[in-house]
Amino acid sequence: MWLSTIAVLLCASLSNALTCNLSSDLVKEIRSYQGTVDQIINATTQGLFKGKTYDELAYFVDKFGARQAGSQVLEDSIDYLLDLMQKEGYDLENVHGENVTIPHWIRGTQTCEMLSPRRTNIPVLTLGGSVSTIANGVEAEAIVVKDFDELDRVSEKVKGKIVVYNNEYITYGVSVAYRSQGPIKAAKYGAIATLIRSVTPFSLNTLHTGQTDYDNSVTKIAAASITREHAHMFQRMQDRGDKIVLKLNIQTQNLDPVTSRNVVAEIKGSRDPEKVVLVSGHIDSWDVGVGAMDDGGGAFISWYSLRVLKALGLKPKRTVRSVLWTAEEPGLIGVQAYDKAHKDELDNFIFVMESDEGTFTPLGLEYVAGDEGGCILEEVMKLLAPINATQANIVDYAGSDITIWRNILPTGSLLNRNENYFWYHHSEADTMDVLDPAALDKATALWASVAYVLADLNKDFPRQVPKLNVVLPSVLKV
Amino acid sequence: MWLSTIAVLLCASLSNALTCNLSSDLVKEIRSYQGTVDQIINATTQGLFKGKTYDELAYFVDKFGARQAGSQVLEDSIDYLLDLMQKEGYDLENVHGENVTIPHWIRGTQTCEMLSPRRTNIPVLTLGGSVSTIANGVEAEAIVVKDFDELDRVSEKVKGKIVVYNNEYITYGVSVAYRSQGPIKAAKYGAIATLIRSVTPFSLNTLHTGQTDYDNSVTKIAAASITREHAHMFQRMQDRGDKIVLKLNIQTQNLDPVTSRNVVAEIKGSRDPEKVVLVSGHIDSWDVGVGAMDDGGGAFISWYSLRVLKALGLKPKRTVRSVLWTAEEPGLIGVQAYDKAHKDELDNFIFVMESDEGTFTPLGLEYVAGDEGGCILEEVMKLLAPINATQANIVDYAGSDITIWRNILPTGSLLNRNENYFWYHHSEADTMDVLDPAALDKATALWASVAYVLADLNKDFPRQVPKLNVVLPSVLKV
Repeated sequence: MWLSTIAVLLCASLSNALTCNLSSDLVKEIRSYQGTVDQIINATTQGLFKGKTYDELAYFVDKFGARQAGSQVLEDSIDYLLDLMQKEGYDLENVHGENVTIPHWIRGTQTCEMLSPRRTNIPVLTLGGSVSTIANGVEAEAIVVKDFDELDRVSEKVKGKIVVYNNEYITYGVSVAYRSQGPIKAAKYGAIATLIRSVTPFSLNTLHTGQTDYDNSVTKIAAASITREHAHMFQRMQDRGDKIVLKLNIQTQNLDPVTSRNVVAEIKGSRDPEKVVLVSGHIDSWDVGVGAMDDGGGAFISWYSLRVLKALGLKPKRTVRSVLWTAEEPGLIGVQAYDKAHKDELDNFIFVMESDEGTFTPLGLEYVAGDEGGCILEEVMKLLAPINATQANIVDYAGSDITIWRNILPTGSLLNRNENYFWYHHSEADTMDVLDPAALDKATALWASVAYVLADLNKDFPRQVPKLNVVLPSVLKV
Repeated sequence: MWLSTIAVLLCASLSNALTCNLSSDLVKEIRSYQGTVDQIINATTQGLFKGKTYDELAYFVDKFGARQAGSQVLEDSIDYLLDLMQKEGYDLENVHGENVTIPHWIRGTQTCEMLSPRRTNIPVLTLGGSVSTIANGVEAEAIVVKDFDELDRVSEKVKGKIVVYNNEYITYGVSVAYRSQGPIKAAKYGAIATLIRSVTPFSLNTLHTGQTDYDNSVTKIAAASITREHAHMFQRMQDRGDKIVLKLNIQTQNLDPVTSRNVVAEIKGSRDPEKVVLVSGHIDSWDVGVGAMDDGGGAFISWYSLRVLKALGLKPKRTVRSVLWTAEEPGLIGVQAYDKAHKDELDNFIFVMESDEGTFTPLGLEYVAGDEGGCILEEVMKLLAPINATQANIVDYAGSDITIWRNILPTGSLLNRNENYFWYHHSEADTMDVLDPAALDKATALWASVAYVLADLNKDFPRQVPKLNVVLPSVLKV
């Protein structure tokens, strides 16, 4: 997930107390899907497909490992999936890749030695997109700040130093600002490099990467994460009056852009094949861990839910399309290209879903839709009672990639028990151990059920969306 | 902590249901200490010493970092403490080091590359005491076993291979057998190296070291830990029929033994100075993390509790002695030398305590003592009601180092909320972040209170101890 859980963060500002006046015919129609949804749930959680989403994903990440944007392994993993989806027994339709030109940034050397007050190596993990330090690294005094306000207060002391952000974890949405904006703000005051406390509420000496931003009007300086533990240590040292001297060597490369692909598969609609309910996740990951959680789980429930529908012979009136976005991590690159290429088709996008905030035990759906749409979703989610995933919560944003359509069409995201998501996020700990086969089965069942019902209802899902209560981050204004 | 929490593990086999018939005079005498204990608690948790155990320990670990047995930094840290304890305001008595010859094992190269089914680096952490592989490492097929039974069943396939133990975490006491005995058992069947799943119930791709054992009658083979995550991955690969090929390079050195020191400080007894209540922890740590938890916390509450007693002018009838054991991690080396040097004095050891299972929020005391001793401890622990640490639980072993005296004199260990102890144990995550200032204050208060009362009671604490219900590990039969 590139973007924060701003959605989660802000949802409290929106009211869930809908007054619903759906026609009794519509309610009856939605309720008539209970048998179908039960069939999907049974097949996925007890029948033929029990444990299969997990097994497919485990095989995939064991085979390919991390799938960083720009890497050959990402393309190999895409080839593998394109093949797999067309295999006998999978039988997805219209399986193809859609080309996208994506950046190719790679990390090289990343070392930090503390020279004073004690000599020791400090583990660092370069942030995505970071520039390099000079060739053999920079040696400089460090200055620790708790937040941007403190940075402003000590701005006169920053010049020529390495700024260490000991940013408290509030929520990811709040605290990730230090990762994305920290280098720009420190460079404005003349810092020569930055170390950012990993954006996580819990650590076992764990480093977390993620994309950082630059401003072309400000000197670009190298940026790496440090652990919570080392940020705390630096804070204690500074508070005691110790002079902290670091030798930081960060080497990175921006290679030539490469061609990657968004991975598309469908079940063609029987009545209105041009109309689309889209389910999605992203196929790329960071280069640490294996991207099992971010976003292997979201990507795999998205294409696997189509396999389940197909195997059960469920062919909805409208097309259900699975898209696995490429290059989400470096800045939602895949979806932006898709948006451009499919501009003319967007009017036919009925409902767009993405799972990129974990596939832990599902609780329901988060959505951005108008009142009538909300009422329909509340009714649809009642069908998921057999797996206790009946919540339908309105939020300000849903998904990560798909937020680019937030203002023009209704969107939804998997609501799940993701309290510990940021323990693993963008770290070496993002592995299959985070995932649970039974939770993934339920997530696949939910994804397949919601997509199927919305694609099959007689009337199109209402298109209107509520006005955004917050400013859209610039990267999403595409 | 070198030894497991066998104590915790086995305590269920012993009954806590004591029938107590302490004389009313003795009960009255113990209760008369409530004012003194309140004074200790107030000074430590609210007064002059609030937060001080944490601050002292944080300064210490920030200054020295890891303190591996054999290293110069361990000796420097011992010098520092010997100085500190004698400083004005600290004023401990009879502060001195007692020489011990200790082993000096160090890790060098530790790399593991998986060559098949996919090329990737596997993080490994050499186990303490491990021998090296051949100079440039061994390249061999891996065979994964879940336990020793499975190893026996597949013994014919083991020759020439690297045995990977995917040992489930049951309890530390049970599962640590794979770390200590795994290399011997695998080598018996002709394995050329071993990888042991880190002994922990939770992991963020976390490696845990610890001492491993060899048997002189069996070929010594290199041993390193892998993460839970990678053990699971290897298991999945083997279960699918994939051939796993690894290149493992482990280089270690056994350097010449060095002289280290047990660190001793006292408050001399006013009536029977030759009689001793001993409080202890160990000063050495592994070379990963900074040994803040294992056993910085235990060591620091042990000497700091004497500082508190001293500052409060509390001089008990018997001597309270703090000993910080050296070289616990490589096999209880410091305490064995101490035992030998103080053989003649052991009859005067009234009660011996060690904290080496965490200094999280204290709950009370674990002890090995006879019924009368148990009844006295139950009464003494009631004095700790102001900090809710009144439990007195009989166990089979208490402490780690001090288990060598388990059969000859009464021993005790800090009972604390250490459910997550093994998340951090022997890993890079053993840092100050594990500790909490308020919990440490309470632990210091408990330690000082129990030591003071037992050292000050009119009658000596009853010497008898219950018969051991289990076999003592060989290393403890000294």
